[in-house]
Amino acid sequence: MTSTAKRDTYTPESLLAVAVEVFIERGYDGTSMEHLSKAAGISKSSIYHHVRGKEELLHRAVSRALNGLFGVLDEEGAREGRAVDRLEYVTRRSTEVLMADLPYVTLLLRVRGNTDTERWAMERRRQFDHRVALLLTQAAADGDIRSDVDARLATRLLFGMINSVSEWYRPTARGPHSGAEVADAVVAMAFAGLRLP
Amino acid sequence: MTSTAKRDTYTPESLLAVAVEVFIERGYDGTSMEHLSKAAGISKSSIYHHVRGKEELLHRAVSRALNGLFGVLDEEGAREGRAVDRLEYVTRRSTEVLMADLPYVTLLLRVRGNTDTERWAMERRRQFDHRVALLLTQAAADGDIRSDVDARLATRLLFGMINSVSEWYRPTARGPHSGAEVADAVVAMAFAGLRLP
Repeated sequence: MTSTAKRDTYTPESLLAVAVEVFIERGYDGTSMEHLSKAAGISKSSIYHHVRGKEELLHRAVSRALNGLFGVLDEEGAREGRAVDRLEYVTRRSTEVLMADLPYVTLLLRVRGNTDTERWAMERRRQFDHRVALLLTQAAADGDIRSDVDARLATRLLFGMINSVSEWYRPTARGPHSGAEVADAVVAMAFAGLRLP
Repeated sequence: MTSTAKRDTYTPESLLAVAVEVFIERGYDGTSMEHLSKAAGISKSSIYHHVRGKEELLHRAVSRALNGLFGVLDEEGAREGRAVDRLEYVTRRSTEVLMADLPYVTLLLRVRGNTDTERWAMERRRQFDHRVALLLTQAAADGDIRSDVDARLATRLLFGMINSVSEWYRPTARGPHSGAEVADAVVAMAFAGLRLP
């Protein structure tokens, strides 16, 4: 395959998928355009044909993850009904988004804030967490969830559990647990806990 | 201060503390003896006076974390009583060990397995998780915890929640949550869940 033919097979979408894998493996800071060029098998100038640079790739990648997560908050199950049920809905759907967009959400979770895009992504994550903390506060005020755990702390632990799925979940038929099994388990543990009454 | 005076103030313990911070910041792979020398403010030969190289520092650091975690399993609360209570004890104490030895456990959680020491640490972590999964299986067999979540999956989610504390907990008086508050919240969420009956 000539380099021209290779380049022609690349779309902004497939280039993004490769870039995300490299960012996760080497860290965003540790990734150069040279690394991206090698991983994608196309020249740097071909990459510049698609994007202005690696920060634009990062922006597109974390945007995809953030759009998935914020999209959950706009769904009917997150907008209507008792706060505790909306919270449970958001918990399940956030877990599903993480598994469906695994590399993008994994990258979002690892962003640490050295560039404008990273700081923007961290700020958006904080806004998302804040929206969930508000739901939690409302559910506690309704008397539907325990009020002995601070809402911000509970939100951190809830998403600590959800986000930890990114460390071992792999969407293959041979993975130890199916996506549905994982989402059910997260909801069961977060809302009902391990101990039987 | 002369470099001799500086060197004399270093102990294996304080050198280890500096090395762990550098490993966490740069990644173990990305850390050279030069980086360690600069961060510690002592010459490379002074470091070699204490240790054979950076892998020995990694080994000492993750050993400290692993000894803390396995030590929990030897405590009376983890050995005696019903499995569900032993599991709850291990959950609380693992959270406390993480907060008490925060940088060491954080480093352990980030180890990825390119050297013998990293592979050994990952294997020891798996052994620890396996011990907890056995407790969980026993508690389910006793009818004390839910049996609709696979024990291995439940262990992963449980430690996903516990270990996520390393991402934001800082043991300062000005931290948003005290260590006791965090340990209580982890136990409450993991065993009783958020939703009130």
